[in-house]
Amino acid sequence: MAELSSKLLEQAVGQFAKLPGIGRRTALRLCLHLLKSEKDESRQLSDAIVRLAEEIQYCQHCHNISDTDISQICADPRREKDILCVVEDVRDVMAVENTSQFRGKYHVLGGIISPIEGIGPNDLSIASLVERVESGTVHEVIMALPATIEGDTTNYYIYKKIKHVDLLITTIARGVAVGDDLEFADEITLGRSILNRTPFETILYR
Amino acid sequence: MAELSSKLLEQAVGQFAKLPGIGRRTALRLCLHLLKSEKDESRQLSDAIVRLAEEIQYCQHCHNISDTDISQICADPRREKDILCVVEDVRDVMAVENTSQFRGKYHVLGGIISPIEGIGPNDLSIASLVERVESGTVHEVIMALPATIEGDTTNYYIYKKIKHVDLLITTIARGVAVGDDLEFADEITLGRSILNRTPFETILYR
Repeated sequence: MAELSSKLLEQAVGQFAKLPGIGRRTALRLCLHLLKSEKDESRQLSDAIVRLAEEIQYCQHCHNISDTDISQICADPRREKDILCVVEDVRDVMAVENTSQFRGKYHVLGGIISPIEGIGPNDLSIASLVERVESGTVHEVIMALPATIEGDTTNYYIYKKIKHVDLLITTIARGVAVGDDLEFADEITLGRSILNRTPFETILYR
Repeated sequence: MAELSSKLLEQAVGQFAKLPGIGRRTALRLCLHLLKSEKDESRQLSDAIVRLAEEIQYCQHCHNISDTDISQICADPRREKDILCVVEDVRDVMAVENTSQFRGKYHVLGGIISPIEGIGPNDLSIASLVERVESGTVHEVIMALPATIEGDTTNYYIYKKIKHVDLLITTIARGVAVGDDLEFADEITLGRSILNRTPFETILYR
């Protein structure tokens, strides 16, 4: 894309274009939209961004994004506290919550181990997970990380860190999605769905 | 998408999701990216947005976005000042500049007439275009607006406003794109490319 006629515009486009999935062309479209809108819209967006960065808090227990020291889920006495679901970020908490199938608590890692992106175990809230697990109140840890090399690496790293504690470590089931045709499932997924097949009665009475 | 665990996050997601082409899911991805990045990145983005809204200037002549009262193109003595190219916004100026085929000056409308989006002639810099044209220095106006109903409406509105002045009013050629097969061109485009056919020599010696 050619040079822009204004340094101010160039700066804003450059900043937007740093965001993932936003190229210079899209960034310019966003900037022109803001210029056409009321100034208030720009101010509100700008405020929201800076407040997010400056004031955001994380739950001291589960490390989920929260407006309070302890997140709503962690503070809820009706949630089972002996079962932890380990997820990558807040989106996964929302996804699991939407299923209404989990009544335990969460542990949000804030990412997964990825040498390519320079994310090591120390950048994630793994030490505090180990602490929580070692405190003895947890009886099961469900690993709900993505089924990628990075996810598997993180799974294995955490497994090694907590396997000395007497508890059940599970991972979410991998298999053919509900409603999907078998012929369209990839071989690894179909293979795992056969290896980890489920007794018939377990399904019937859900 | 389910409710978010934090009002700060909710606010930022809501603001990003107001931008065109960005839904709540993408907005959340952008916010999580900013939370994972250095705080400086958020501050710079926030600053750039607010400065764009507060400090942006438009050229007094062509109404293009500019850091100075008079844009670079308008201030350039080598550009022909008797020929004006009328475009919708700064992106079209860049597109025409990229062709290196135009050595005149521009007039940026800042949009096109669109009753659906509530944009009328008074929201655009049409009055100042009429003024420029009436000043008598302009001998040709090239209309380079999109070939849509809105573009045609704007073309016709401007034509009625300036037709009393003694000058040539043209529009950019519509036709089959260079490199395209005839069979894939739509009928209206192909039809216009035949109606507005070009003498052979004009092309040969370019």
